[in-house]
Amino acid sequence: MKPIKRLAVIGLGLIGGSLARALRDAGKVEYIVGCGRSVANLEKGVELGVIDSFTHDVAEAVSDADVVFVSVPLGAMSSVFEAFKGHIKPDCVITDGGSAKATVIEDFMQACPEYAAQFVPGHPIAGTENNGVEASFATLYNNRRIIITPIDQTSADAQKIITEMWQACGAEVIEMGVEHHDEVLAATSHLPHMLAFGLVDMLANLDEHDDIFKYAAGGFRDFTRIASSNPVMWRDICVANRRAVSELVFSFAEELQSIGELIEQGEGESLLEIFENAKSARDAYVDGLDDK
Amino acid sequence: MKPIKRLAVIGLGLIGGSLARALRDAGKVEYIVGCGRSVANLEKGVELGVIDSFTHDVAEAVSDADVVFVSVPLGAMSSVFEAFKGHIKPDCVITDGGSAKATVIEDFMQACPEYAAQFVPGHPIAGTENNGVEASFATLYNNRRIIITPIDQTSADAQKIITEMWQACGAEVIEMGVEHHDEVLAATSHLPHMLAFGLVDMLANLDEHDDIFKYAAGGFRDFTRIASSNPVMWRDICVANRRAVSELVFSFAEELQSIGELIEQGEGESLLEIFENAKSARDAYVDGLDDK
Repeated sequence: MKPIKRLAVIGLGLIGGSLARALRDAGKVEYIVGCGRSVANLEKGVELGVIDSFTHDVAEAVSDADVVFVSVPLGAMSSVFEAFKGHIKPDCVITDGGSAKATVIEDFMQACPEYAAQFVPGHPIAGTENNGVEASFATLYNNRRIIITPIDQTSADAQKIITEMWQACGAEVIEMGVEHHDEVLAATSHLPHMLAFGLVDMLANLDEHDDIFKYAAGGFRDFTRIASSNPVMWRDICVANRRAVSELVFSFAEELQSIGELIEQGEGESLLEIFENAKSARDAYVDGLDDK
Repeated sequence: MKPIKRLAVIGLGLIGGSLARALRDAGKVEYIVGCGRSVANLEKGVELGVIDSFTHDVAEAVSDADVVFVSVPLGAMSSVFEAFKGHIKPDCVITDGGSAKATVIEDFMQACPEYAAQFVPGHPIAGTENNGVEASFATLYNNRRIIITPIDQTSADAQKIITEMWQACGAEVIEMGVEHHDEVLAATSHLPHMLAFGLVDMLANLDEHDDIFKYAAGGFRDFTRIASSNPVMWRDICVANRRAVSELVFSFAEELQSIGELIEQGEGESLLEIFENAKSARDAYVDGLDDK
């Protein structure tokens, strides 16, 4: 791919900052403008060399851009897209990093359907529990998967540019249907986050919470890591992907109810079966990762 | 403390093997005999220098021992204690590594109450998801907490010997009531394991399970690490601590049901409150760890 002349990153956090850094390191971008609300964060971005300049005005940020990457919480997507109207160049390509795709596409089509051919909805399957441009790093996408969910209107050229952009960051790009994406992500990411947030919330509300956290072993730290994620981002994801997420949360509540009954009744054999099934699935999953 | 002349480790896995290695490294043990069922594992223990010799016979292993450490799954404790009868020296001290204490004490008092004064029930809050003597390492207990739950009969001398033994491994020893231990551990360890096992089991049973595991992000690996734990050990823990664990599993199923309803109804503000509460509790817990 030819380097991107001007990249606009709307929402300069872990996800947007890491894309900027990765493209910069790969020599695949000439100029990066950052856009967001926090002056301190944007100034930090310039200081760290992640972006070249910044603005708080979305219209200004995108007006000369060749590629626009939107990495704001899902609840803020709509107002960003509204601000695009009349400011996107005809050959500019727009993509995003939203964790639920149906809602982003809906917001986009309501706000600026005239740019539909230039829009390639995407979702990088990468992240840490940390936020802000300081948490970003150039290798975040290295060997990770990026799911893109093109819409009917998405042009082949636009899709090619975004695919190559992510490949330049070391990522593998995979195309998926919108609904399938939202269901798979509800299972692998949104549900686990609900369990981690829910567990820590429940334990924090118990009387003996001091002792509980004091005597938590190593496994607890890993298990609850995702409960340190950004609450606003996760509120938005839940609301955006509410159908798929609530369905899975209810199914899991039922699964837990059955497990609780097996434990109460001391049904060792049935419990063993569940644990063995889980262990072999999880071990196989990790072996699969090691292959990469 | 004076070095232990003869240590018997009944059940030579991660927990027992790591105690043996730590005491050996600290110069606090002269001779270690391992006891278990798997010849291959015990031979590996000798080869790695973790133990000096081994036997499959519990009575033989403990007959000359000065300290006996029992680290078998909870379901096997009872038969180990039965084998003690008539073979424990008067000055020998017995301890264990069981993750639930009420049941171990009950098993002990049924099998060999004559040794009650020599028994110091214990639980090292340490571990990894790996099993077997090969997974053991000398620093497992370094800077970790060991909970001991002495019974009324436990002699002060016995408690002192076990306390100093763990301190020699770099651990901090904390005394706790039996019931309180079992409740705290149900919350911090047993419940999280049920969530991890239950989640992976449920996902593995979904139609699209291949895609689900394929597109799981980094957080999923950490979140499900404990689902790779030993299924037999965890079946035994659930059955042993069934009252406390099942209660918490039911409470959490209810918490999830409420979270699911909030998501379904798009109640962003209430969700945000839960997530923020969880994040601050978890961040505070991790900050506390860093102090250690």
